[in-house]
Amino acid sequence: MSKQLKDVLNRLSRHEISVAQAADQLADQTFSDLDFAKIDLERHQRTGYPEVIYGQGKSIEQIVQIMRDLKQAGQTILVTRVSKHQATGILKQFPNATYHATGRCLTDVSQTPPLTSSTIAILTAGTTDIPVAEEAAVTAELYGNRVDRIYDVGVAGLQRLLANIEVVRKAKVVIVIAGMEGALVSVVGGLVNKPVIAVPTSVGYGTSFKGVTALLTMLNSCAAGVTVVNIDNGFGAAYSASMINHLGGKNGD
Amino acid sequence: MSKQLKDVLNRLSRHEISVAQAADQLADQTFSDLDFAKIDLERHQRTGYPEVIYGQGKSIEQIVQIMRDLKQAGQTILVTRVSKHQATGILKQFPNATYHATGRCLTDVSQTPPLTSSTIAILTAGTTDIPVAEEAAVTAELYGNRVDRIYDVGVAGLQRLLANIEVVRKAKVVIVIAGMEGALVSVVGGLVNKPVIAVPTSVGYGTSFKGVTALLTMLNSCAAGVTVVNIDNGFGAAYSASMINHLGGKNGD
Amino acid sequence: MSKQLKDVLNRLSRHEISVAQAADQLADQTFSDLDFAKIDLERHQRTGYPEVIYGQGKSIEQIVQIMRDLKQAGQTILVTRVSKHQATGILKQFPNATYHATGRCLTDVSQTPPLTSSTIAILTAGTTDIPVAEEAAVTAELYGNRVDRIYDVGVAGLQRLLANIEVVRKAKVVIVIAGMEGALVSVVGGLVNKPVIAVPTSVGYGTSFKGVTALLTMLNSCAAGVTVVNIDNGFGAAYSASMINHLGGKNGD
Amino acid sequence: MSKQLKDVLNRLSRHEISVAQAADQLADQTFSDLDFAKIDLERHQRTGYPEVIYGQGKSIEQIVQIMRDLKQAGQTILVTRVSKHQATGILKQFPNATYHATGRCLTDVSQTPPLTSSTIAILTAGTTDIPVAEEAAVTAELYGNRVDRIYDVGVAGLQRLLANIEVVRKAKVVIVIAGMEGALVSVVGGLVNKPVIAVPTSVGYGTSFKGVTALLTMLNSCAAGVTVVNIDNGFGAAYSASMINHLGGKNGD
Amino acid sequence: MSKQLKDVLNRLSRHEISVAQAADQLADQTFSDLDFAKIDLERHQRTGYPEVIYGQGKSIEQIVQIMRDLKQAGQTILVTRVSKHQATGILKQFPNATYHATGRCLTDVSQTPPLTSSTIAILTAGTTDIPVAEEAAVTAELYGNRVDRIYDVGVAGLQRLLANIEVVRKAKVVIVIAGMEGALVSVVGGLVNKPVIAVPTSVGYGTSFKGVTALLTMLNSCAAGVTVVNIDNGFGAAYSASMINHLGGKNGD
Amino acid sequence: MSKQLKDVLNRLSRHEISVAQAADQLADQTFSDLDFAKIDLERHQRTGYPEVIYGQGKSIEQIVQIMRDLKQAGQTILVTRVSKHQATGILKQFPNATYHATGRCLTDVSQTPPLTSSTIAILTAGTTDIPVAEEAAVTAELYGNRVDRIYDVGVAGLQRLLANIEVVRKAKVVIVIAGMEGALVSVVGGLVNKPVIAVPTSVGYGTSFKGVTALLTMLNSCAAGVTVVNIDNGFGAAYSASMINHLGGKNGD
Amino acid sequence: MSKQLKDVLNRLSRHEISVAQAADQLADQTFSDLDFAKIDLERHQRTGYPEVIYGQGKSIEQIVQIMRDLKQAGQTILVTRVSKHQATGILKQFPNATYHATGRCLTDVSQTPPLTSSTIAILTAGTTDIPVAEEAAVTAELYGNRVDRIYDVGVAGLQRLLANIEVVRKAKVVIVIAGMEGALVSVVGGLVNKPVIAVPTSVGYGTSFKGVTALLTMLNSCAAGVTVVNIDNGFGAAYSASMINHLGGKNGD
Amino acid sequence: MSKQLKDVLNRLSRHEISVAQAADQLADQTFSDLDFAKIDLERHQRTGYPEVIYGQGKSIEQIVQIMRDLKQAGQTILVTRVSKHQATGILKQFPNATYHATGRCLTDVSQTPPLTSSTIAILTAGTTDIPVAEEAAVTAELYGNRVDRIYDVGVAGLQRLLANIEVVRKAKVVIVIAGMEGALVSVVGGLVNKPVIAVPTSVGYGTSFKGVTALLTMLNSCAAGVTVVNIDNGFGAAYSASMINHLGGKNGD
Repeated sequence: MSKQLKDVLNRLSRHEISVAQAADQLADQTFSDLDFAKIDLERHQRTGYPEVIYGQGKSIEQIVQIMRDLKQAGQTILVTRVSKHQATGILKQFPNATYHATGRCLTDVSQTPPLTSSTIAILTAGTTDIPVAEEAAVTAELYGNRVDRIYDVGVAGLQRLLANIEVVRKAKVVIVIAGMEGALVSVVGGLVNKPVIAVPTSVGYGTSFKGVTALLTMLNSCAAGVTVVNIDNGFGAAYSASMINHLGGKNGD
Repeated sequence: MSKQLKDVLNRLSRHEISVAQAADQLADQTFSDLDFAKIDLERHQRTGYPEVIYGQGKSIEQIVQIMRDLKQAGQTILVTRVSKHQATGILKQFPNATYHATGRCLTDVSQTPPLTSSTIAILTAGTTDIPVAEEAAVTAELYGNRVDRIYDVGVAGLQRLLANIEVVRKAKVVIVIAGMEGALVSVVGGLVNKPVIAVPTSVGYGTSFKGVTALLTMLNSCAAGVTVVNIDNGFGAAYSASMINHLGGKNGD
Repeated sequence: MSKQLKDVLNRLSRHEISVAQAADQLADQTFSDLDFAKIDLERHQRTGYPEVIYGQGKSIEQIVQIMRDLKQAGQTILVTRVSKHQATGILKQFPNATYHATGRCLTDVSQTPPLTSSTIAILTAGTTDIPVAEEAAVTAELYGNRVDRIYDVGVAGLQRLLANIEVVRKAKVVIVIAGMEGALVSVVGGLVNKPVIAVPTSVGYGTSFKGVTALLTMLNSCAAGVTVVNIDNGFGAAYSASMINHLGGKNGD
Repeated sequence: MSKQLKDVLNRLSRHEISVAQAADQLADQTFSDLDFAKIDLERHQRTGYPEVIYGQGKSIEQIVQIMRDLKQAGQTILVTRVSKHQATGILKQFPNATYHATGRCLTDVSQTPPLTSSTIAILTAGTTDIPVAEEAAVTAELYGNRVDRIYDVGVAGLQRLLANIEVVRKAKVVIVIAGMEGALVSVVGGLVNKPVIAVPTSVGYGTSFKGVTALLTMLNSCAAGVTVVNIDNGFGAAYSASMINHLGGKNGD
Repeated sequence: MSKQLKDVLNRLSRHEISVAQAADQLADQTFSDLDFAKIDLERHQRTGYPEVIYGQGKSIEQIVQIMRDLKQAGQTILVTRVSKHQATGILKQFPNATYHATGRCLTDVSQTPPLTSSTIAILTAGTTDIPVAEEAAVTAELYGNRVDRIYDVGVAGLQRLLANIEVVRKAKVVIVIAGMEGALVSVVGGLVNKPVIAVPTSVGYGTSFKGVTALLTMLNSCAAGVTVVNIDNGFGAAYSASMINHLGGKNGD
Repeated sequence: MSKQLKDVLNRLSRHEISVAQAADQLADQTFSDLDFAKIDLERHQRTGYPEVIYGQGKSIEQIVQIMRDLKQAGQTILVTRVSKHQATGILKQFPNATYHATGRCLTDVSQTPPLTSSTIAILTAGTTDIPVAEEAAVTAELYGNRVDRIYDVGVAGLQRLLANIEVVRKAKVVIVIAGMEGALVSVVGGLVNKPVIAVPTSVGYGTSFKGVTALLTMLNSCAAGVTVVNIDNGFGAAYSASMINHLGGKNGD
Repeated sequence: MSKQLKDVLNRLSRHEISVAQAADQLADQTFSDLDFAKIDLERHQRTGYPEVIYGQGKSIEQIVQIMRDLKQAGQTILVTRVSKHQATGILKQFPNATYHATGRCLTDVSQTPPLTSSTIAILTAGTTDIPVAEEAAVTAELYGNRVDRIYDVGVAGLQRLLANIEVVRKAKVVIVIAGMEGALVSVVGGLVNKPVIAVPTSVGYGTSFKGVTALLTMLNSCAAGVTVVNIDNGFGAAYSASMINHLGGKNGD
Repeated sequence: MSKQLKDVLNRLSRHEISVAQAADQLADQTFSDLDFAKIDLERHQRTGYPEVIYGQGKSIEQIVQIMRDLKQAGQTILVTRVSKHQATGILKQFPNATYHATGRCLTDVSQTPPLTSSTIAILTAGTTDIPVAEEAAVTAELYGNRVDRIYDVGVAGLQRLLANIEVVRKAKVVIVIAGMEGALVSVVGGLVNKPVIAVPTSVGYGTSFKGVTALLTMLNSCAAGVTVVNIDNGFGAAYSASMINHLGGKNGD
């Protein structure tokens, strides 16, 4: 039973609230209803993470309206998959926001979180994987994680990876981002004993099938300790990595 | 540069070993060569995890021979995907080993690891997902994790999940195992703020496509914090979960 | 044997028409032949539903010509998948028609049907599913159904759905529209005991495969009482839902 | 807010129960926990439909144990996908149960529901589709529906369908079951103006792809009013059809 | 309007039959209703081709019962996809029938059709394609076609094909049967100017995907004049080829 | 042995040509070598059909250059898949050529072939299938076939097909063109006893998968006598149909 | 023009043979016609490689008959994909033949070819890939190549590969055999500058899709110099590798 | 152990360098770190091949920057998949570079390699395959290979191939490039006894699936000696072919 439910029941039992009020409170909407969207205004409080807006397919007006609501609720805002065109429109309304062009993210920070002492290492196999990596890096940094970027270290030139392996090994969690054949994740997974989160990218041509091949490679990785997210999902990898990076030795709360 | 490399170079520099010996040592095989297999005898030391044998497609003789090598190296052994027939054959040679029939695993523990105070919660959507869940549970317990099993809580009967949600919420990492449509992971991912590792299972018929549908559902989960492993890969999920469950607040080593 | 056939045979038997006339009438075209299209002018009479024009891939001229024929036959007209460009062209010829921009539909009502007392509930998981939902809503309302719109209630924030569940429960039939992983349908299917029609949408990226993942999830739903239509087929879902919503307790005719 | 929640809150408010009791009751398990399964004992009361056991992949012992629990709760039982071998084992424990060999179902009726006056028509394209049709028919009859069986009326011999069309037309809802190319559903959908539920079957060879082709045909049916269920899912089609067949003219409850 | 319809109408017009009788006759079943199957007893008269029974998935009893009905109607019978086990059972009841083991067909000829002067050439790429070729050959011969068999002439050894090309060229229609990469059809299509019907076979391994690769090759053949049937569908190819082979110079009837 | 080979050998044997000349002549190129293309200048003589240029992906210059060569060889020319832009460019060079806009074909007739007495019937299920149908019709007419166009007779409105069935039945070969679910071919195949060539089209949305669903439906058609060509391949269907329509009762040559 | 053609023409020109004889000789079958198979008796002479029999799907009798023909022609014989059961049957007839159980090959050597000085290195990622590797090794050795076997060196334990890299580097051509994610090929391709032939294997489970994932990985390898063969096609890889290994510095013949 | 490692160890052993320097040198980056890319400056020395830049998805600035680094290192440069737009931008900075428009490659040669006496034959099935062929030809020539281009020799007109077969046969390695059904490779593979590298192209429509069909055909080729690269990968085929063409009779180095 959740704490909130217990509270409501206790207050009802003490006659501090009526049955109707209890019912109301249990059904209480902790989100703002914008007709086209129901925005979670207590997400930060509930999960420790700001609400995230997936920008693709939304109009500038819709994004601006959602950002206003979140802003009023005092939340830090992250918008992912923001085109240059969308960003220009949004920045007119939110001049203090920042557009991260490579990672196609827009952030508006209300309060800077404390920085972790441990790091998340973000690796890419090639240069064309960098936009996904930057989406991950911006997300991870917004959530207060130290990030080490190690880009363009694909396995066809193993020496590039080995020259950077110590930075990878000292991270608490590793994100490996690769398109085409995605083999980097197995090599990294065999060289470190930390959780590895693999992100396939839609980079490639022909039988890369817009990332499906890299995804399959990663799901079949013979290196244990690897988990996978959706194609191009830099945000999702960083979100999970941040959760792990923030885990202390104590029991879950 | 790895510690081992540094050591070899230092000893060479101090003339304690010759160039040839240094070269030998750098190439030194930390694995046993069985002709048909190269067995990693220092995996436990290097990664903190015992070597794992994937039993499917191996003869009883091959498994027994690998187990002998690992046993001599003093390692705890986990064999996954072991049929009843294989288990019977192996147990004749290793009478102290244990066969976990539901999870199709065989273990032979040389030293029991200390138990974590935090827990891994393992959920299944249905009863036919339990073999995969038990593969995960046996793996996690062998690696010293406390495990909470919460089986048959699929979303079609939401009350079954909600009645157990507090146990899920207090876990440090959650494994969600589901076949068919795999929707459980999104609901769980929305209710907890811990890393969730999703395992699609090959349970189902028709368009379940032997787990592909559940896999796709999980990769597309709208709940942040979810990562995914291969279909039926209970071992892989538990391995990652154990890594995360053992992470303390300190920097990586 | 259909009533029309019986009539023709009776009149032939009474010598009111000749054999040739009977043959003619049996083959009688109840459609208008436009060379490029054969339009069903008696559909409304036969099925109780207006003829529907699928606008995509048709020229403005073709749509206008078909509308003219239907209009002359006194039919209410629904054109689906109409782009803004097509709509502008059509509205010049049919200034009394209405373009529903979000749902990409154009309607020209000749007679308003009586409104049902029972309702159809239309749910979406996210905001980008709304165009498909509006195609469904416009269709359902055109066919005389009361509609309740409940948008952006995806399962990752279960409280948004639960806050609206009573409206869903009192509907006679429920349409659930979702892209990405499509898990909403299983949760709704578990919470109501009414027919649920699921519409996968092409919303998403990567392994959402333009709606295929949501489709598969819905087909595999562990909740009984769920049936599925083609990806983005808001019209089809509403058509079926309207049929069901209009069913009384009496036998079929 | 559900009636149950309201009741608990009212009784708490009237001090008839303590806070702890209220919390208990809200979390109250309306299911029996069998370790490997959580059985919904109030499903019949809640949904009007008996609990259904999916037999495939379950041991005879598991099925028997679940049936015992349901039996004690006074529920009518339906087990689907029961092999002859499983049936023999179950019937030893439940001699009053009935095994429907063609439809691979096992039923144990505790109370016969009243029969509907309206009918469900169940059509198959070929003779090899009959097992799926019988699964649907047994399910529908168990739920109190009159059923008309019209088998082997595939479109390659259109006269077979037309000779039976009046029976189809007077049904309140129609189930069309077909493998191979699944074209029957479009023809039927064009001839009736009742909801049509299509069931693809895994019958066929080569590019029938175990029912995927029939599924795709049905999803793309140009006849409006068609919805689709998973391949071979006769039970699911009947469940939805029964819901529709039982709908009266009154509002949903 | 069909001749049958005209007849009924004429007789009704002449008062030879009543309206009710006319309706009855129009719905008249030209098929035998066996409960599990509706057998087309006039197919031979209507199409010039005997009724065909697809044996796979049918019990020996079902096949025997259908054969009895066809036999009574004086029809020649072809049963395809008959296993050795099925054949043994059927031959006990129909000792005069013939089982063609390689082509897995069973025939029972009531009257031998006249033989065509023109030929159908049936080519296979390899030896493992021969069962499908024999299904085609038996079918074609049963329908009164002269057949030339040219087996094992795959393109990797072009000289084998070229040594037989004159026999191919003098055929009126050519059937090309190939698995694996299916390239034979393009080479043959380029060398003859007769209709070529291509049959992919499920022969092969790995990426032959049980005939899908051969099917795709054939559909994409750069040689004009090629049409394709389902994987392993020797019967279907022969049926079409026989239709073409029997076409004279006169108009269609 | 081909006639050409025989001739060369005869002339060599009679010392009319030298060994070198014989070798030259056997290797003699019956095509024009344009560097980027090898054009078959004797195709008409060899196969009775003009050379066809597939326009898509070729520059206007390339098409013009190939047409020049064919023109010089006195051949009738058919260019398929010609965009409006390409057509405009080509017509400047070949003002006597004709562009068939709906069928996206361009023809330049050098000599009109005699017209067949028998017909090819071309059916489409919908109006958006017409471009493919016109590609087929233009091709068939260019090759001297009488063509009957019967468009927009999809099975959802069976009466539209039945009203035209006599025209279909009197054709010598039938082409059925359909997208979406492609069911028309099975119904037609069941109603006629002539060869039916099915053309799937890329018309549709969602799970129509750009024609793959219609293709699969057609390959699985339960009506015998159906063969299939590639998606949108109106030309290929007409080429095969023309071959069949021109077949007389005599043996192959 | 081939030498054979020239010879025939010369002899015809010198009147040593008649035109008819020339025609005969040009069509001369350099293969034995066994009714079910056309066997290439001059393959060894023509290509330098013995004829190979693909054993799967052939009866023992068929294989024996083909071997007899080849044996009489003095050829060395290789049969691939031979089951233990088939081998036993064949060895009864050819007691001097050798069955290679792991590689499922059967060889009967008529003359031992000279051994190459350069080597082919054959690597596998795991132990379950060894049957495919042995098919390759037996084939390569039969064709006179020195072979180095380096098994179980998957990238998850990179040190196993690096310890053997010098043997790999000194090979003239490298065969890399891997299932699951197939990443080994990219790492090897980056470490050597010799042609690498990759063989995906059907080893794995879940999303390994019976070798498709490994195949896709290999086709997308970011390492240049990699080409790929069909899943499990050890023979094909060895055949190509042998061709390359035998290439000298001279021009092609 | 590599030569470089040996050198470093020797110098350390001779006290020419310190332990720290040895460690530094072992980790020494033989690549230039551009932040967004790690460029291999010694690739030419190490592999004998220039570094290749994959142009697609890179900005003109990124390509120019990488070219500068390579230029400074004295390397010959090949950029593949360069659009006309990119080429214009690059040529402004590197006026001595050459843009090969058909093959979409850009080269900047620092030193011309010696030309091989043996040749690589490059064949295409059609004219639309030529861009891929030119990518291969430019690559092969840049690497010092003689190249014979034999374009538009698809199997539907076998005489076009046979007229050129002698040029193909005298090559040391053959590249076969084909889209649509890809059958050319099997015919060529059967006519030559040299290594054949097959390149599927994305040319085609409908079920050509952007090259997948051609790829599958090639992987399933019944002609031994064929290996395959990714769709449209002309560069990769040429790279492998060049490796093979440069192989002498001597052992690997």
